Amino acid sequence: MKANDYEVTMDALVSLCKRRGFIFQTSEIYGGINGFWDYGPLGVEMKRNIKACWWKSMTQLREDIVGLDSSIIMHPKVWEASGHVGNFKDPMLDCRETKGRYRADQIFVLKHNSDESALMFAYHENAPAPAEKKIKKIAKGEVSDYSEVALLDIPLEAYDKLVGPDTNEPGTLTEPRAFNLMFKTYVGPVEESSNVAYLRPETAQGIFAQFGNVLSTVRNKVPFGIAQIGKAFRNEINPRNYTFRSREFEQMELEFFIKPGTDAEQHEYWVNERLKWYEKVGLPEGRMHRDIHEGDALAHYASACTDIMYDFPFGTQELEGIAARGNFDLTQHQNTSGKKMEYRDEATGETYIPHVVEPSAGVDRIALALLCEAYREEWINKETGEIKTAEVGVRRAPEGHEARTVLRFAPCIAPYKVAVLPLVKNKEELVGKARELFEQLSKRWKVFYDQTGAIGRRYRRQDEIGTPLCVTVDFETIEDDNAVTVRDRDTMKQIRLPIDELEAYISNIVDF
Amino acid sequence: MKANDYEVTMDALVSLCKRRGFIFQTSEIYGGINGFWDYGPLGVEMKRNIKACWWKSMTQLREDIVGLDSSIIMHPKVWEASGHVGNFKDPMLDCRETKGRYRADQIFVLKHNSDESALMFAYHENAPAPAEKKIKKIAKGEVSDYSEVALLDIPLEAYDKLVGPDTNEPGTLTEPRAFNLMFKTYVGPVEESSNVAYLRPETAQGIFAQFGNVLSTVRNKVPFGIAQIGKAFRNEINPRNYTFRSREFEQMELEFFIKPGTDAEQHEYWVNERLKWYEKVGLPEGRMHRDIHEGDALAHYASACTDIMYDFPFGTQELEGIAARGNFDLTQHQNTSGKKMEYRDEATGETYIPHVVEPSAGVDRIALALLCEAYREEWINKETGEIKTAEVGVRRAPEGHEARTVLRFAPCIAPYKVAVLPLVKNKEELVGKARELFEQLSKRWKVFYDQTGAIGRRYRRQDEIGTPLCVTVDFETIEDDNAVTVRDRDTMKQIRLPIDELEAYISNIVDF
Repeated sequence: MKANDYEVTMDALVSLCKRRGFIFQTSEIYGGINGFWDYGPLGVEMKRNIKACWWKSMTQLREDIVGLDSSIIMHPKVWEASGHVGNFKDPMLDCRETKGRYRADQIFVLKHNSDESALMFAYHENAPAPAEKKIKKIAKGEVSDYSEVALLDIPLEAYDKLVGPDTNEPGTLTEPRAFNLMFKTYVGPVEESSNVAYLRPETAQGIFAQFGNVLSTVRNKVPFGIAQIGKAFRNEINPRNYTFRSREFEQMELEFFIKPGTDAEQHEYWVNERLKWYEKVGLPEGRMHRDIHEGDALAHYASACTDIMYDFPFGTQELEGIAARGNFDLTQHQNTSGKKMEYRDEATGETYIPHVVEPSAGVDRIALALLCEAYREEWINKETGEIKTAEVGVRRAPEGHEARTVLRFAPCIAPYKVAVLPLVKNKEELVGKARELFEQLSKRWKVFYDQTGAIGRRYRRQDEIGTPLCVTVDFETIEDDNAVTVRDRDTMKQIRLPIDELEAYISNIVDF
Repeated sequence: MKANDYEVTMDALVSLCKRRGFIFQTSEIYGGINGFWDYGPLGVEMKRNIKACWWKSMTQLREDIVGLDSSIIMHPKVWEASGHVGNFKDPMLDCRETKGRYRADQIFVLKHNSDESALMFAYHENAPAPAEKKIKKIAKGEVSDYSEVALLDIPLEAYDKLVGPDTNEPGTLTEPRAFNLMFKTYVGPVEESSNVAYLRPETAQGIFAQFGNVLSTVRNKVPFGIAQIGKAFRNEINPRNYTFRSREFEQMELEFFIKPGTDAEQHEYWVNERLKWYEKVGLPEGRMHRDIHEGDALAHYASACTDIMYDFPFGTQELEGIAARGNFDLTQHQNTSGKKMEYRDEATGETYIPHVVEPSAGVDRIALALLCEAYREEWINKETGEIKTAEVGVRRAPEGHEARTVLRFAPCIAPYKVAVLPLVKNKEELVGKARELFEQLSKRWKVFYDQTGAIGRRYRRQDEIGTPLCVTVDFETIEDDNAVTVRDRDTMKQIRLPIDELEAYISNIVDF
């Protein structure tokens, strides 16, 4: 698959997503709530398709992986064992004047190159312009005399000379402090420490905690995996980039338990498997990257970690992390619970705590990447039918062309698989045939029925929501050949197909 | 479908569910956490099947319903508008001596018929025996002199004469107080009242809050519905009856928006539709009941409410409530948010706030009912093959019989749809054919492959996890007829079927 050559802007995408019902702001009627999103009628279908493709590839097409659905609220000891209670923290600081709150590691500072007593100017990552303005205005200095330093490298004693990102006064920033990202609640009626519980910040620990139970109910031998899809929650200080970094999100995680020593090969295997899957659901090689963690970027227990990255309009960002985590998690749970987390190899008699490779993907991020990748504005030559990529931001097509917006989803991801369109709506027999076909196809797929408006306009509506195939019932269908016209979303080409062959044709294109 | 004539005990069911990987206690290695459950490899598939059957029946086989996936954490104003902040409370009281905590409406009291100064004895709903014992022992009286009274009808002044359910001393019970069942958390790093948020106690309000956005993105006309499946949370004082009343659970809710005045007919329609659905997924009429709310049992804004009940081993309990809620919710959100929640009928020009009928079902309860209904122990006559229901609790089959445990799931609910079994495992060609068939069928369904042990034993394994069809590849298959033996789980009858016809045969039986 070729990379989409249209560079979508977030504004255009967000607008389409709201207008056509892919993504809404949560509780929008109350002004929204930062970091939470709802999926509308089309978004929910698309997200279900992503999850179904993953679940099928993991648990149906393979014998060596079984599923699990563990609860969001677990025993708090789970998060002590995993290290989340102690370590799952971001450094955070406040501005006393503006009440702004920042992740300290996302704030940088322009500091004078030689004058230690000069004011320093803090700014948000990648946005130094306001700080440079303040240098000229407040310090009446030259930007070139200042250099970038990480906020976390500024000593606390110097904070009285530090001007916050959103104020003009120095000395308003508080000391950075560690902030745990887990949402906390209380189980039972009393808010006391013995009743504290957390919303899981990842689904993975639910798998580790049930390792023994699963092992005793299946007959799988190492290597084997446990897969899970479900919601997770992180109290992010700065949710941002639309649905990319949100506080409530959905994960698809696999823990693949392996024999110690096979870590490197299994890690490599899973990176490749996952990249193949991404290509299959519509993310082409050209916009995908591997970010290989090395040295300090690697957790102390991990022997390898590769992030699968996608080129979003707001930068290249992680969709999935694939980590070889050794036996860190199972060992931690064994130590904390006192319950054995071992596997006995019947063939060799060996007993060991399995190592694990963990491909951990974010459903919402994948949905966003698929929307970015699919979105395209195009100009169609009215005479030749030739399709040209539109210029970004130019809404009006050039002379002799017609504009269309199209979501070029992989068919397995598209919310609707087929639209059934009677050519006209005032001919009973024709409409009857179309309805009959619609009902037949609806037993297998999600199908759109539309009889309103000119046929060209109906095609455009389907293009805009990414329906891969339009089936038109016309006069010939009922009078002559019992065949239909099938129009392809991407090429806009039409073929004539006997109704008898339709289901097999559709299945071949749209089923994962 | 006939009602299952085997009366399963909860002990037998819980044991099977753990042993075969349907349901585990959450965080079992840490002693569990009351009111939370995990679904194992088979349970997760079964639960996915329940949800898929519902989603298909709502959003794929109908044009008048669209889906939604709203977030678990919403703006707190949603819960003020819905009345949950003010009213979603249970009365709760404590025992100062035992530290026991009770839902006041589940506690009853034995009170002396004539002596106002006599001790009174509290007990848990349906469990008066300990209280009767105490009457004989502590009050040295006759049980027949006492009558049952609801705890909430005992005046506070008399609490000093009241003996708690789990103690022998009077005067240890606290005054009942209202306890809000919503789990509370804080969004953002500061635990202050402006940051309070709740885990949704129902998915329905997410639908009401997005009514306007959905309406503007779809072309549906009233009556039309919005369907949603998702997790909800209630901080129950006494989670109980296995997974039936838990603190974290999954709902399938439909809000069907209707023209005011059509409430009664639409309510009746949905009660019937839902009962048909239950029959289709395997809950027979014989164990299903309608509990029609009338008078005080009806919320002030509701014009009708019918609960769909199932005969569980622990009593007849609600699976789904179907309520005609008028326009209460939309009106509340309109008043609280100031945003219009109206529908304009293009044909008549009328503008109104639609009324709603709400079928609200619990996935976990349905899963539990389906397990209860499917579970059966049977005795097979070795000579005639006749199947007889076993006597409850008798593990050993009578002379000349063999015992089996079978989950008689509706095929659409069964975790595995088919098992492929080579008759022997040491004949390469036969195994190869079986593997080929397994891989072919796995593209469409979840299929089990098993070549270990005697064929009869392999059948029993599939019976116990509810696999409706076993396909056996034998010598004739490869040498002669390219056909297979298909064995039915319920009748244990076998037929011979050409491999060419197998997919159509399976599809006809297992697809919803």
